[in-house]
Parts: sequence; structure tokens; C-alpha cells
Amino acid sequence: MGQLTLSAQCAAIHTSVRRRLCLTVFFGLSAATSFAALSVPMQGHENALNSNTLNPISLSQVQQSRHSVTPNSVKIEPLNWWIGMQNPHLELMLTGKDIARGSLRLENDLGAKLIETIPGDSPNYLFVRLDLSTASAGTLTLVLSLPKSALNPATELRIPYELRERQPGSSERQGYSNRDVMYLITPDRFANGDTANDDLPGFDDKPNNPVYSEPGNSRDNARHGGDLAGIERRLDYLNDLGITQLWINPLLENRQPAYSYHGYAITDFYQIDARFGSNSQYQALVSNAGDKGLGVIMDVVLNHMGSGHPWMQDLPFNDWVNPKSQHTSHRRTAVQDPYAAPKDAAAFTDGWFVDSMPDLNQRNPHLATYLIQNNLWWIEYAGLSGLRIDTWSYSDKDFLKAFSAAIMTEYPHFNMVGEEWSGNPAVVSYWQSGKQNPDGYQTSLPGLMDFPLYDVLLQTVNEEESWGTGFIRLYEALANDLLYPNAQNLVLFEGNHDTNRLYSLLGRDMHKFKLALAYVILSNRVPQLFYGTEFAMQSPVEGRNDGAVRADMPGFGKAAFGKSDIDAMAGESKAAFEFIRALLHFRKTSDAVHRGKLVHFVPQFEQQPGLYVQLRLAPDDVPGAKSLLIIYNKNKEPVSLEMGRFTDYLPLNTDVKSVLDNRRFSLPATLNLSSPVTLLEF
Amino acid sequence: MGQLTLSAQCAAIHTSVRRRLCLTVFFGLSAATSFAALSVPMQGHENALNSNTLNPISLSQVQQSRHSVTPNSVKIEPLNWWIGMQNPHLELMLTGKDIARGSLRLENDLGAKLIETIPGDSPNYLFVRLDLSTASAGTLTLVLSLPKSALNPATELRIPYELRERQPGSSERQGYSNRDVMYLITPDRFANGDTANDDLPGFDDKPNNPVYSEPGNSRDNARHGGDLAGIERRLDYLNDLGITQLWINPLLENRQPAYSYHGYAITDFYQIDARFGSNSQYQALVSNAGDKGLGVIMDVVLNHMGSGHPWMQDLPFNDWVNPKSQHTSHRRTAVQDPYAAPKDAAAFTDGWFVDSMPDLNQRNPHLATYLIQNNLWWIEYAGLSGLRIDTWSYSDKDFLKAFSAAIMTEYPHFNMVGEEWSGNPAVVSYWQSGKQNPDGYQTSLPGLMDFPLYDVLLQTVNEEESWGTGFIRLYEALANDLLYPNAQNLVLFEGNHDTNRLYSLLGRDMHKFKLALAYVILSNRVPQLFYGTEFAMQSPVEGRNDGAVRADMPGFGKAAFGKSDIDAMAGESKAAFEFIRALLHFRKTSDAVHRGKLVHFVPQFEQQPGLYVQLRLAPDDVPGAKSLLIIYNKNKEPVSLEMGRFTDYLPLNTDVKSVLDNRRFSLPATLNLSSPVTLLEF
Repeated sequence: MGQLTLSAQCAAIHTSVRRRLCLTVFFGLSAATSFAALSVPMQGHENALNSNTLNPISLSQVQQSRHSVTPNSVKIEPLNWWIGMQNPHLELMLTGKDIARGSLRLENDLGAKLIETIPGDSPNYLFVRLDLSTASAGTLTLVLSLPKSALNPATELRIPYELRERQPGSSERQGYSNRDVMYLITPDRFANGDTANDDLPGFDDKPNNPVYSEPGNSRDNARHGGDLAGIERRLDYLNDLGITQLWINPLLENRQPAYSYHGYAITDFYQIDARFGSNSQYQALVSNAGDKGLGVIMDVVLNHMGSGHPWMQDLPFNDWVNPKSQHTSHRRTAVQDPYAAPKDAAAFTDGWFVDSMPDLNQRNPHLATYLIQNNLWWIEYAGLSGLRIDTWSYSDKDFLKAFSAAIMTEYPHFNMVGEEWSGNPAVVSYWQSGKQNPDGYQTSLPGLMDFPLYDVLLQTVNEEESWGTGFIRLYEALANDLLYPNAQNLVLFEGNHDTNRLYSLLGRDMHKFKLALAYVILSNRVPQLFYGTEFAMQSPVEGRNDGAVRADMPGFGKAAFGKSDIDAMAGESKAAFEFIRALLHFRKTSDAVHRGKLVHFVPQFEQQPGLYVQLRLAPDDVPGAKSLLIIYNKNKEPVSLEMGRFTDYLPLNTDVKSVLDNRRFSLPATLNLSSPVTLLEF
Repeated sequence: MGQLTLSAQCAAIHTSVRRRLCLTVFFGLSAATSFAALSVPMQGHENALNSNTLNPISLSQVQQSRHSVTPNSVKIEPLNWWIGMQNPHLELMLTGKDIARGSLRLENDLGAKLIETIPGDSPNYLFVRLDLSTASAGTLTLVLSLPKSALNPATELRIPYELRERQPGSSERQGYSNRDVMYLITPDRFANGDTANDDLPGFDDKPNNPVYSEPGNSRDNARHGGDLAGIERRLDYLNDLGITQLWINPLLENRQPAYSYHGYAITDFYQIDARFGSNSQYQALVSNAGDKGLGVIMDVVLNHMGSGHPWMQDLPFNDWVNPKSQHTSHRRTAVQDPYAAPKDAAAFTDGWFVDSMPDLNQRNPHLATYLIQNNLWWIEYAGLSGLRIDTWSYSDKDFLKAFSAAIMTEYPHFNMVGEEWSGNPAVVSYWQSGKQNPDGYQTSLPGLMDFPLYDVLLQTVNEEESWGTGFIRLYEALANDLLYPNAQNLVLFEGNHDTNRLYSLLGRDMHKFKLALAYVILSNRVPQLFYGTEFAMQSPVEGRNDGAVRADMPGFGKAAFGKSDIDAMAGESKAAFEFIRALLHFRKTSDAVHRGKLVHFVPQFEQQPGLYVQLRLAPDDVPGAKSLLIIYNKNKEPVSLEMGRFTDYLPLNTDVKSVLDNRRFSLPATLNLSSPVTLLEF
């Protein structure tokens, strides 16, 4: 999340924003707007939908062409479902005027059983629980009988609902892993592939909207126009760079009056924002990226939504959203602390993130189910290889446990990474699947963002070496891996949309920059880069600078982007690119980096200042796999390293290959070093 | 330990020291010296010892009067043993010229069985393993037959060995607990009760010995003359202050050429240093202190010994001491780190602490047994209520596991605290009994010194309040308690012999000093004070200042010390004393402080700057027990605190007692505060 610094601004303008939102009536948005979910006319006719049954492409086509909402329509979420899921239960959320009073039966039930219906607190929501244990694929019909009212005669609505076959192997899909390198894209800022969707009717946050922007930079918090079409055009570039997974900041609809480009104020959980593209474009992007060896990781927001979400005009249940009594305290330890006052824990989880982001109350079981099913839907529909989960710990703890278990039950080899923005590994490790916490709490979340190691890495690289500073910090930080059930599945990043730019944080020192990047890329973690780092993009370094950090990617508006563009760049950008590309391509080939046992050696400040050596041992089960000695070197003047400490693993006179300069030689007793990182493969 | 800063000095003078030590021949110390262990003449006669059998006082009387070692004597360690221990096995270490060649049998065996004898690598040591499962109390006889040699005829030695009855309830003894307050005494500096033992023949480190002392302060590293008699004279003072446990820096013999006052260079594991007193005086001190409600905790060194230990002239086994290849790296994470190179772990555990402290190799099973039995002996002999274990992690890991298990098996309700000098709770918690470490390692060590919380406390009190600094650090640090199986049994200190003085570290600010002391004394820990803190003793604050930190206690040379001495003190000393005494006496009465559930409240920097509130709830099982609200307050100007946040536990208008000023009132909605700590009992 990146809205912290705007909370004061948001608070200041809250009243007027709310007034504007209140003018947008839930039932009766303008006909031109694409609505949040599958809508069917309230006439009970089967319509064009049926002809698309079982065709995996069809639904999205329907979505694109579907009708605007009329006062007599019902929308159903999830948009469709699948047979053969581990959990045979499905809870549909039906939204429509006065439907909570209706009674429901199934027709052409395909073996599905109606368990129960539950009306919302609002008369306009009906939750329908189905048992699909014995259901077949096809389109069943929900028949909703509405009693006579003062305004309307008794009505019987016939609502088709599609149950699909799953794609073969869907449940066994392999999530991202240590073989991968993630690349974070802020889609509004990465590449504008379709200028026609930059300014769409019905979306108030126009390109170059100055609201919330910093004085003197009217565009920094406005939308720039990047989109899925732009990402699609860069797939070959990303593949050539050596990337294998794309984490894209949220793409779902943010129909907010302003400051919507970041994507974390979702107003429709089942719809790609039209300014980015469509659901089918997203589905196609994932498929096309997959063909090039690139997985896609969805950025998921469970904690909050956008204030423009229709729910805010008509809450399904009175407790759907936590009361806007105060903002979150951001005091995250309160939910782990054995001594925390319960109100302090609630002040963390239940406070609003900012005024424009109402806090969802996942203790409501229907909302919890909605969010779980929504994420299963996207994984299954789009073919995802992972989830990145925003503001992880800000959601209800019990929900997080249920959520993560539900996802991993359906996809046992899937992967997810939670954002727990703390420098304390005790706090972060609490959330990882397999952690034995004294309070008995356990999630099924496979991974976390490694903020603690990121913090230490920056400090290490930036500070002078001494007995207690510099490389020794990085060395000792890795001992904290004993806190994690699976440290290797943490995601270590060099930066993200909420951090200042690495190159700037390291004083635009290319030696330090390369050292830090090499550490991230070669660490015993899943490495993650932020778009533009390959060109040493810069930002201010004090405080938050979201607009500058999330600047347009080079080539933002260009249809094609490639070698000639890079060749034309300034020396430092080009140097960064070539270094990163070389490392990433080497990494692809190295089983030792992917899963070789790590051995590291105490940095010896007195004897060998500014040097830190790690070893990654070739996995035993890979014939011919190579081991790797990694020497991190802070010294800019040539130095030499005595190799005697490492001979238990790498005997003198072993034939080694120096990876980055492609030299082969017999290991001497003293190795001369001048690079920030030296890789010896053997 | 406190020798870090001297290692360079020690290294520099090492050669000459060793030369001097080499002149001290193991067999043949001067007759006047009291020797390391029970020695019996090599004539096979039963001597005066026998008349003392079964009398628990007798042995120490014998020890005081025992013969000097002659070339034909055998010493036996442990000095005696007890029947009815959980572990029925006993391994005696016999030391005597050429005895390793001897054969041994039991006579008058009292039901004890000889399991085996094991010769040392040196011809002068024989280890004798006995099974005491069916043994009775009394004095058995070891008959050692030595073969004829070139110099001596065949000899048969008859060596008496005493097996005692245990004191009733010994195994069920209750170690120190959260009811207690520890008080650390550096015995050479606390009180000189017997000037006759200040300068004894045979001890080269004379009072005012300038060796190793800092320029300009010839006495700082010399012996001052404090002793057990001095402590004995202060028992009433300590009891009046409110102390309940005495941790006394090591008292065992340090027959070192210089810099011996600290006690960590032990040269006889079975003998109180004669300059402090005798074994029987120690035994009597523990007994007399116990009569006044004061327990005694022994300061134990497992990792190393003094270079003056006789073993250094004649190692029992070749691997008894780790080779003096280098000093310890002090890189403690290497023994926990899942990725550490084994040689780095060895460089930590096997390196010498300093040149004057050879590193014991506890992987030698006979040394391991020796150290375990030695500690059981002192607990049983002297009647201890706890052990403080120096340089805990520097010893062999497997030994530490076996050591702690052996102690806790014999005394299941005992308590021990290890020194793991790290600010990282992940590192410290690794060692606590019950910790589930990923490598499967588990000790039976009940407690650790809470260096992490001490560090945070100092930082908290000294720094300005802000969003991320000040009380929030202390609040968040307690969330790390989830790392500990039993955080309540950590020992939190305000200082020790290795830290600079608290009052100085807090800028001689009495408000801060009181705040920090209150936190230590009222924390959910076992609190520990350092002698002299009750008078706000001072020291420099940068680097190590052992001589100044371990300055003479007020009244050091006086026979009596009490109210009139305190009344005559400067205002700040007197104020400190009165504050601490009041807190300690309150603490004695408060079940809530001893074991009440802790609830604390997020410090709200914006709303209530400089305030931090903790609550300790009255234990349910104590009829009439009171709860306690503790308000820590950094503000020196009067401030007020809204009590609305705490009404779930402490409703408005509750009758409360303000402990420190003894006022009773009905709790108002807004409480006016001016003290660094306010205690409301209700």
C-alpha cells in the first residue's frame, strides 16, 4: 500500500468526496458504465449467455458486451464457478432490488443442491449456498420468486448460472518458486499500449487529474494511461531481461473520484479496470505471458476497498465494513503481542487505512466467503501463478487463516506472498505457514515479503565496515532464518512501489548498486525487482515520493521497446541493464542459486575488510550441477582474498569459471578482486 | 564476562605470563597454599576424615585444615558425594603422580559398585566411575594398587571417600522466581569484612597490584579486599533494602598472577578463593542469608578457566583445553545459524576468551562430567537457589544441553540464568528450555539474561518520543516475548558488572533513572539490580570502564553500614535509595507484580505523548489480591491522562490506592501526573 502520506489530505477532503459519492445511486449507474458483475435482465429469460456455456472464452465476451444495470436486474457473484473444486460448497451473492424477500429454487440443477438462502441486512442482497458435490458442468437456473409488493406484482426470475469444467491440471498448478525472478509493474506507469482507454466516460479520475498531486507536479498522483496492452507489448522485453514472474499492482476497477492509478481502492472485485483493459484481456495476457515462460501474480487487497464501491451506498450487512471511527493505528504487533489490549488489536485491524479506503470486516462470514471465492475465481479464471497480498496483517486474523487455507487447499502447489511491513523477523515470521506460534495461531500463507532483510541489506551496503557494522549485519541477519519455517520462500526485493529507488538510496553509487542487486538476485530467497531498476531509475530518498518512485518506465508511450532504446541510454542506465540481465540469465541456469544449500562465512573485518563470502552447493540430485562461490566486495580499490577458509568446499587449484567475466582458471591461494561481486562456478 | 577490552593487553603480555605460570609446578605447590581439592596422604591410612563421616559440617572443617599436597598424595574430586541423587552414577577424578597405571577396587563399599576406571592421557589422572544405586551413606574406601616402577616399589593406597545423606527437601528446593529481586555483588568491591585475608602468601595478585590497571588509576584492576565476611555483614542492610536473592560474581579460587579480582579465571573449581574466605564460610553465608529470606545464586563459568589452573601444567586429556590458535570470534550467531560454516561455529566456541583464560573443551566427556558434577556439588553443598552461567553460548552446544538437563533433573524446581550477550531476542530465545528450534536443539536452561530488553529500555528512556521512537520501542519489544517459551523467567537488569552505570547512561537524570528502575523492578521478569545502583553510583558512559563500574560500594571498609550512613549521603544517592527501597518493599507484597497477567496499551504519541501504561491483573487464585495499573511518564511537567482507554479493566470511580505516595481516591476520568511512575492498586 502506498497511501499513508495522503491520509491527512484524504481526511481533509473527505466530506466533499462522500457527497459526490452519495450522488451516485447504486441501482441506476449511467448506461455507459461497465458494472461490477454479471448482470442478467430480471425477466427470467435465458439470454445470449447460454450459448456460451462451457466455452472458457465466452464469459468474458459476455462481460464486455453485457447490459447495463437496470432497476430490475440481479447480479451474481462469483461470475461463474467450476465443478471439481476441493470445497464443494459455493456461496452466491445476489444483488438486486428487494430480492432478500425472495424464495429460491433450482431448475435444471445439474446435480447441484440448494443448501440455504440467507438474506442480507439490506433488502437488496440474497446469499445462496449451493452444494456442488454431485454437480455436472453446464448452466443451471436459479428461479427466484419475489412476493407481491406495493409497487410490483409477484415476479419469478429465472437466472442462468454457469458451472464450468476446470482446465486440466488447474489444481496442481505450480506457483512461483525459487527458480523465478519477480518483476513488479505499476501498470499505469509501465507502458501505454492503448491510448483509447486513457479517458473513459464514467470514470472521474481523468488523466492528469491534479487532485491530490503535489504542488508543482500535477501529474504525480494522476493516471498516466499505462495498461494491459502496454504490458503485453513488453513481454518479449521482459523475457529477454530474464524475468519469469510479473507481479502487477492491482488491476481491478478503481472507480474513485481521484488518485486511483495505484489500484488499491477497488470498486469491483470481479472486473479489471476498463482503463487497464478487460477481464478477457487479462486472461489473454496471462496466457500469452505463460507461453513466453512468464507467470503472473495478482496483487490482492483483502483489507479494504475503494470508497466508490457500490457497497458503500448499500451495505449487504450492517457489519460489512468496520465503522469509520478512526484510521488504523498501524501498530501491527498488537495482533501478535501476548499482552496487547484487545482494543489495541482492533485499532490496528479495524481502523480505516485512509478515508478513501473503507476497512472491510472479514468477521462477517459472507464477506469472508466472498473474498475467498473471489480469489479462487481469479486464479482459476485467469490462470495465475501466485498472489501478492496487500496489507496482510491488517485483515482479521481468523479470516487470514481461513483465506490462506482455502487457497492452498484448492492449489496445494500454489504460492502467495503477504506484505507485512515490519523490519522485525519475529513479527514477519509469525504469519508464515508452518510457524509454531505460542498462541497456536497458524496460517497457510507460504511466503512473506522480506522487509527485515531488505532493511539490513540497505544499511549494510551504505555503512562503513567495522566490528559491528557493514557485512556483519547481513551475516547475522541470515541467522534469523531460524525463525521462519521456510525462509527460502520469502520474497526479497530491491524496491517496490512504496520504497524510494534503490539507486538513489545507495547514493547513485554503481558499485553499491550492483552489490545490492547481486545480493537480491542470488539470495536464498525469491528475488523481486521493481520496474525501472534495470535502468537505475532514481527518486528522492527522504520520506515518501510515490509519484517520483512510480515514474513512467522508459519507452512508456512507445509501441516497441528494445535494444536500440537501451543502446541510446545514458551510461549508468545501460550499465545497470547489462549487469542485471547478465545476472538474471546466469540465475536461470544455476540450480545452486535456485535451491543449493547455503553456507556463508563470517565477514572478517580485521583480516579481510569489506568482503563477504557465500557458497551455494550444487544440489545432490542434479547430475552435473555446479556449485557457486559468491564474493561480495565493498572495496573499490583492488583487494585480494585468501581462499584458505573455503577449501573444505572449494579446494585450491579447482577449475573454476568466473561467471560475470566468463574467465576459467585454476583457483589460486589468493584471489584478486575488483568487482562488487565475483561468482565462481565449480 | 568483562575481559573483552583487555584481550589486546593480555595478548601482549602473554609470553611473560606463561613463563611465570610455568614456574609453578603442579605437584609441589608451597605448603602454605590451600589446594584445589580433597587430598589424602598416599599411605592408605584412614585419617581424621573418617571421624567426620555423615556430619554435614565436617568436610569443610577438614578442607580448611587439610594437608598440603605432597608428591605422594592423591586428590579426589568431587570432594564428596551424596546418595539418593537422580543420577546414580558418579565419576571421580583422581589426581596423583603416575596413578593412571593403577588398578582400583572398593573396600567397605557401602553398596557402591565400581563400573570402570579410565586413565587420562596424562599418567597422573585416573577417572573412576561408580554406580551408587544401592549405596548407603558413610565412608567407603578406594584401594588403588600402583605397580612397581623404576623409582617406587609397588604400593597400595587406601583412600577414604564420603557418601553423605542429602539434606531433607534438597531435590525439591525452589529456585529463585518472579517473587524475587536479584542483587549482583562484585565481592572484591562490595565490603571488606576481613582485612586479614587481603594479602595472603601464595597469591601473587596483591592488593593494589598495578598490573593491567589503567594509567592514572593503579587500583582499578587490582584487588580491593572485599570478601564473604563483608557480604555477611551486609545481610541485614540488603534485607532491609528489599533484596531477596544475591548473585555474587565468582568466588572460586583465581590464583592468577594479576587481574584476578573479577573471579572469572578459576584455578580451583572446588575451592572458594581464600581472599574471599573458605568453603565453609560460603556455606554459612548461604545458610545465614537464607535465614533472612535471601537466596544465593552462584556465578558459574563453564567455558573457560584461569591460566593458573594446575591442569595447564598437566592436562588430564590432550583435548581437555581447546588449542590456543586464536581468540573466540565472539560471532555467536554461528552456533545457531542454519547456514554457518562449521569452522565459524568452532571459531566462536573453541577460541580462547583471553590469553589468561584457556578455553575448556567440554566435548571431552570426562571434563563435561567434571563440570556437571562440580555444579551439582556446589548446589548441594552450599544450598544454592540458582546459578548464573557466564558466557553461556561459548561452551559446546551438546554439553550445554547435557549440563542443563543434568542440573534440572536433580533439582526440578531450580532456576538458572544464562548470559547470552545479544540484543537479538531470536538469538537469546534459542537457548531457553522449551524452545522449539528448527534444528531440533533444546536445552533445559530455564532463563536467560534479557539483554534485548535492557538495550531497548535504555534507548527508550534516553530518546525523544515520536511515531517510531521512545515508548513505542518498549511496547513493541514486549511483543517479541512470543519468541520465548517463558519470558517471565528472563532476568531483566538495570546494569551489571559489564555495563556502564545506569544513572550515568541516563545522563544523571533522576526522572529517567527512576523510570527505568521502576520498569525493571515491576516488569514481568525476574528483576536484577547491580550493587550501588541504590545510591545512583556513576561511571563513564563510553566504552568499557570496568574499574569505575565496579567501584567500591559505599561503606566498603566499614564494619557496619545503615541508616546513618545513608542519611549522610548526597541528595541524589539518598533519593535513589528511598525510591528503590519503596519499590522493592511494595513489590514484595504484590502478587500482581509477581505473576499477574500483563496487559499493556499502545503508547499514543499524538494524543498522550510520553506516557505508557501497563496493567498487571490480580491472579485469580489469590483471594483479595490487588491489580495494578502502572503509568510510566517521561514528562517532567505535569500532564494528565484520559483514563477512558483502561475502563475495561479499571472502571472510573473505582477506589484506587496510589502506592508511591500512599494516597487513596476514586479514579477520575482524567488523572493528573507528575511522577516518572505512578502505581494505582485496585
